[in-house]
Amino acid sequence: MITLYTWTTPNGRKPAIMLEELGWDYQVKGVNIGKDEQFAADFLKVSPNNKIPAIVDDEAEGGPLSIFESGAILTYLAEKSGKFLAPSGPARFKALEWLYWQIGGLGPMLGQLGYFANRAPEKVPLAIDRFKDECERLIRVMNGRLAEAEYLGGDYSIADIACYPWMVAATTMLKVPLANALERAPAVQSWLERLGERPAVQKGMAVLQS
Amino acid sequence: MITLYTWTTPNGRKPAIMLEELGWDYQVKGVNIGKDEQFAADFLKVSPNNKIPAIVDDEAEGGPLSIFESGAILTYLAEKSGKFLAPSGPARFKALEWLYWQIGGLGPMLGQLGYFANRAPEKVPLAIDRFKDECERLIRVMNGRLAEAEYLGGDYSIADIACYPWMVAATTMLKVPLANALERAPAVQSWLERLGERPAVQKGMAVLQS
Ligand SMILES: N[C@@H](CCC(=O)N[C@@H](CS)C(=O)NCC(=O)O)C(=O)O
Ligand SMILES: N[C@@H](CCC(=O)N[C@@H](CS)C(=O)NCC(=O)O)C(=O)O
Repeated sequence: MITLYTWTTPNGRKPAIMLEELGWDYQVKGVNIGKDEQFAADFLKVSPNNKIPAIVDDEAEGGPLSIFESGAILTYLAEKSGKFLAPSGPARFKALEWLYWQIGGLGPMLGQLGYFANRAPEKVPLAIDRFKDECERLIRVMNGRLAEAEYLGGDYSIADIACYPWMVAATTMLKVPLANALERAPAVQSWLERLGERPAVQKGMAVLQS
Repeated sequence: MITLYTWTTPNGRKPAIMLEELGWDYQVKGVNIGKDEQFAADFLKVSPNNKIPAIVDDEAEGGPLSIFESGAILTYLAEKSGKFLAPSGPARFKALEWLYWQIGGLGPMLGQLGYFANRAPEKVPLAIDRFKDECERLIRVMNGRLAEAEYLGGDYSIADIACYPWMVAATTMLKVPLANALERAPAVQSWLERLGERPAVQKGMAVLQS
């Protein structure tokens, strides 16, 4: 059995979508990061970086295995199942390119824009503009890719699963600063619709909410 | 033959270290990001996100293959060579955890601290403190890991290769804001020494400088 430690945030939803896509049995443990539960000693054993998501797989090769970092979790589940990531060849690395692009770019930059535009105690134009510009650029790059390929890696893969909750955050929490960029990204819009129709995506997005 | 598109920055040095570790023949093409060469049409075909590093492997399985994102490049080279990343099992995912941690955390956060502390046109305490706190936390987390394991993934792996140029940046470019955190991280210091003694690390760090 796989235990998923997560919360109702973009990063927290990615492994839930993947587990729903696989149709695997898993249990969810909520780690309320609004109440600092990510600093509990038991959770730090699983996720020493004090962030969700993390998993423990009791039935991993070689005994129970804990994994933190959503990119590592998605890769683990893809390799264990043989699904949503080609085992070798160009298709594998096209998907990994966009998965790393999400982890190193789209995620942290939208996260910082969310902080400086919506939550910071003061409005700092230098910071808001910096992260707004970078997020607009990232959306443009993603749109370029999705204008030439139906999914980020070519076929539907863990790269799409990783990007989806973040692009949903861009169109909701960050709707105001990113309105122009989103309007000019029709290929991203239709990709969002395509993914949003998948039952597993809908269930994963609702993790801990039902 | 592998062509490495890179520049003299932390991300740009990672694949150079890996290629040196492997002892493979490769050619380096400098992409001067100070002169906006990352926006040249030919480079964008290889790296549509207009960032270095990127590679093209003429002898990839299935024909020439381009890859951007340093994490994807390191994974590709590790899987092609069978080195510095276990093919399966716990050792593989311990290394991938820390590789993703570098890509999504250590890299972007040190990068933002570098901007707000050293290069921004005005000093914004809110932003400097935010990224300083996060970098201090990340250094603490890394020190905790290296106090229990000689290398981030257990054995020397692409996770160490990814983190090394960034930790060197922390101890040089970011020495002032991070002095306290670095002083309290003896396990990180001895890991830095251990890696710095490797000839391949020395050669990779000097890419485009000799
Ligand atoms: N790169 C990490 C990012 C994880 C992350 O940022 N998690 C946030 C919630 S979305 C968190 O747990 N924050 C709590 C904290 O930092 O204390 C991943 O992809 O797993
Ligand atoms: N997540 C990417 C980050 C790459 C990156 O930030 N590259 C910087 C130099 S270290 C760059 O090319 N900047 C030029 C630009 O953004 O226009 C990776 O690990 O490859």
